[in-house]
Amino acid sequence: MLEELKEKVCKANLELVRHGLVLFTWGNASAIDRPSGLVVIKPSGVSYDDMKPSDMVVVDLEGKVVEGNLRPSSDTPTHVVLYKAFPGIGGVVHTHSTYATAWAQAGRNIPNIGTTHADYFHDDIPCTRDMRKAEVFGEYEKETGNVIVERFRNIDPNDTPGVLVRNHGPFTWGTDVLNAVHNAVVLEEVAKMAFISSTLQLPTLDVIEHVPSMNKHLIEKHYSRKHGPGAYYGQSKKSE
Amino acid sequence: MLEELKEKVCKANLELVRHGLVLFTWGNASAIDRPSGLVVIKPSGVSYDDMKPSDMVVVDLEGKVVEGNLRPSSDTPTHVVLYKAFPGIGGVVHTHSTYATAWAQAGRNIPNIGTTHADYFHDDIPCTRDMRKAEVFGEYEKETGNVIVERFRNIDPNDTPGVLVRNHGPFTWGTDVLNAVHNAVVLEEVAKMAFISSTLQLPTLDVIEHVPSMNKHLIEKHYSRKHGPGAYYGQSKKSE
Amino acid sequence: MLEELKEKVCKANLELVRHGLVLFTWGNASAIDRPSGLVVIKPSGVSYDDMKPSDMVVVDLEGKVVEGNLRPSSDTPTHVVLYKAFPGIGGVVHTHSTYATAWAQAGRNIPNIGTTHADYFHDDIPCTRDMRKAEVFGEYEKETGNVIVERFRNIDPNDTPGVLVRNHGPFTWGTDVLNAVHNAVVLEEVAKMAFISSTLQLPTLDVIEHVPSMNKHLIEKHYSRKHGPGAYYGQSKKSE
Amino acid sequence: MLEELKEKVCKANLELVRHGLVLFTWGNASAIDRPSGLVVIKPSGVSYDDMKPSDMVVVDLEGKVVEGNLRPSSDTPTHVVLYKAFPGIGGVVHTHSTYATAWAQAGRNIPNIGTTHADYFHDDIPCTRDMRKAEVFGEYEKETGNVIVERFRNIDPNDTPGVLVRNHGPFTWGTDVLNAVHNAVVLEEVAKMAFISSTLQLPTLDVIEHVPSMNKHLIEKHYSRKHGPGAYYGQSKKSE
Repeated sequence: MLEELKEKVCKANLELVRHGLVLFTWGNASAIDRPSGLVVIKPSGVSYDDMKPSDMVVVDLEGKVVEGNLRPSSDTPTHVVLYKAFPGIGGVVHTHSTYATAWAQAGRNIPNIGTTHADYFHDDIPCTRDMRKAEVFGEYEKETGNVIVERFRNIDPNDTPGVLVRNHGPFTWGTDVLNAVHNAVVLEEVAKMAFISSTLQLPTLDVIEHVPSMNKHLIEKHYSRKHGPGAYYGQSKKSE
Repeated sequence: MLEELKEKVCKANLELVRHGLVLFTWGNASAIDRPSGLVVIKPSGVSYDDMKPSDMVVVDLEGKVVEGNLRPSSDTPTHVVLYKAFPGIGGVVHTHSTYATAWAQAGRNIPNIGTTHADYFHDDIPCTRDMRKAEVFGEYEKETGNVIVERFRNIDPNDTPGVLVRNHGPFTWGTDVLNAVHNAVVLEEVAKMAFISSTLQLPTLDVIEHVPSMNKHLIEKHYSRKHGPGAYYGQSKKSE
Repeated sequence: MLEELKEKVCKANLELVRHGLVLFTWGNASAIDRPSGLVVIKPSGVSYDDMKPSDMVVVDLEGKVVEGNLRPSSDTPTHVVLYKAFPGIGGVVHTHSTYATAWAQAGRNIPNIGTTHADYFHDDIPCTRDMRKAEVFGEYEKETGNVIVERFRNIDPNDTPGVLVRNHGPFTWGTDVLNAVHNAVVLEEVAKMAFISSTLQLPTLDVIEHVPSMNKHLIEKHYSRKHGPGAYYGQSKKSE
Repeated sequence: MLEELKEKVCKANLELVRHGLVLFTWGNASAIDRPSGLVVIKPSGVSYDDMKPSDMVVVDLEGKVVEGNLRPSSDTPTHVVLYKAFPGIGGVVHTHSTYATAWAQAGRNIPNIGTTHADYFHDDIPCTRDMRKAEVFGEYEKETGNVIVERFRNIDPNDTPGVLVRNHGPFTWGTDVLNAVHNAVVLEEVAKMAFISSTLQLPTLDVIEHVPSMNKHLIEKHYSRKHGPGAYYGQSKKSE
């Protein structure tokens, strides 16, 4: 059943690897078939090297396995909560991509400080609250979905298709599973850029900008060594 | 028309990918044919995998399409403004390359603190001012060009062939489109180096330099383990 | 003797290179055959390009060579101390991987601040104490093992299979040598993520979060340029 | 003449590219034939793609071309000064490698804080002083050599085979040109590690270590989800 969707989900999982978002088995992608309410998801802890469409597992919206010989991703209950709460989405992706995970570990929202971010995510990428002991030792993966939904009470998930689960890592979603992968790639790049920008904005750096960092004569020398009438870098006249 | 220039512009766009400056479709390169005043530019949102010279779009200096079946890059009006204001340039490149974009997001000029920078850019890489609401909701891409030109009132664009558009990303230019690509690659590397240098100059670090960080005996031990008469690392006498 | 284990150890050493943990010859992996108490280890300073199973050296639990034409890794005495002190382990790995080594050089434990860390290491990755002059100029490599064992007085090495040797670099271990390699890869990734998180947690950054970093109108413009009814990025209706 | 040395120097220059130390033409390597006092060096501004042994230029210890059709590297006078001042060296390398250059731009010595550093460089990697206007506008490249030699007044260049030229970049040397390349690779890695360590040592971070960063229950949950009797990650019993 849903053979076409299985192929798409398998491909989406492999795309995560190709984009460098996944180390070992640390990621999963799923898609929903809205008419039937069935979700196709990656099996748990299977190597990406051998993964094929027929390994994908089909679960219903209670997270119960409908088809498949392998155990579904341990994060399946989180995916299912998101499909139920966000009717506009068709695919969900979870990774431990380096920079997005680091923001989650720092417990900070990724601020919307650039057009790269604003091209894809309308608001800051929100970070969820600390999970309570009862949530962690109860139905942990389902509660993970619940804290995400709670965080989006005043945010439109269609306009801001991603979240940071505190001390854990990012989830993204999209109109379909390949769009969710696309958003996961963008989120990681946006997280990296914002890390660099934040470090460059450390207040103490302002002081430094008034310190002369290189002598004017060294600038003149190097610029004129490669450009203008006295240039002598490279062969003959051709400055590379 | 301009078939040779289309090939060059197509190649320039692919060079941006090869140098790791472009993710998905986030970049564009163009060239001008000065005699005719026509500009050849990348089409908007087309995948780099399938891009071929015949996809390039020809526009005039008002930004109107003269030839081509595809919509030109949405940044076309910015390119056109630069060609009109800077008569010495033959090519323009826009990317969202990671480090240059992060400086733009931080709203900081990249200081000229090294000969790598001074070999290519005479001054600091300037960052433009905040754009006003009327500019953003008016002819946004054209106004983006205008704030760049405004920023270069006292800077020679031929000596400093690049800029950071605040909260957005870098534009570079050059004598031709391949030179503009070259400058985009240099700008990204210069931005990365300056990020590291700036972090290393955090005033609080001065304190640390007076803290002994490694015991002298550990230094002696490791150095002599690989070098000198008592060396015992590796096979026989050969220190690798 | 132990031909199968030699193949496994050789493969494990090459895996370190494949995962980017080793530059030149800066790493070594070993495995123990518990029934015989013999350890198979990489030879010292041999290039990974030419390494083959028959180059592996067999030593006993006193570190004496039992079989092999090459000198064993200079870190062999450290491995042997770990096998004797931690009876649950089957393999040991040492690298100078970039981020883990940087934490060791800073003399800091890697704090357990994310589920990626907690999935593999129960506690913080501990950093050892400064080694004393007598330890460094005595049986240095053996004493290196001893400070590791000392550091684990109150930590279960089976639950936290890795350590940072101060001013030196990481050692990891595991149920077998391939598991030890796996833990070395995870440790490096965890070290990188924690570095980014720590930098993002610099107290002074809190101030910054209250500074408006990008105008609301720029956000609206860019989001709506790619999404919704007025979108004009890309070809026709298809927003990528 | 010196055909064998030309092959070695050509190979050394290409090794710089292979190790990611050189962008475009930003690097050069040379070797000296001590008996004849002749130096073989890379030509200036030539692309690495087409470089062949016969392109190498032979100069004497006054920097005058003895053989070769191309102009030698513009840094030739610096190399020559080093060969004259440091009789123990056989090869010299100059790059603009990212992290080493960033330390040079920050004007800081790279502190010897790890055994990776101490395995190759006995002391801190020293940074030269600001060059004076007369030095810069005089025989600039020769004076660059002179400030390096001045900096080594109390340092043994055989034990610490590298330097940072302030606001410029690193020079390394070695017993022969391939050893000088090896030291350039090590210097870049040591510079990167020390950058990370320095950032981790920002005094303000000490405060953070006392802030609980992740709830104990989340640690317990994740560790036990993958390990121990109740593990349910992955397929069947096999924890990956």
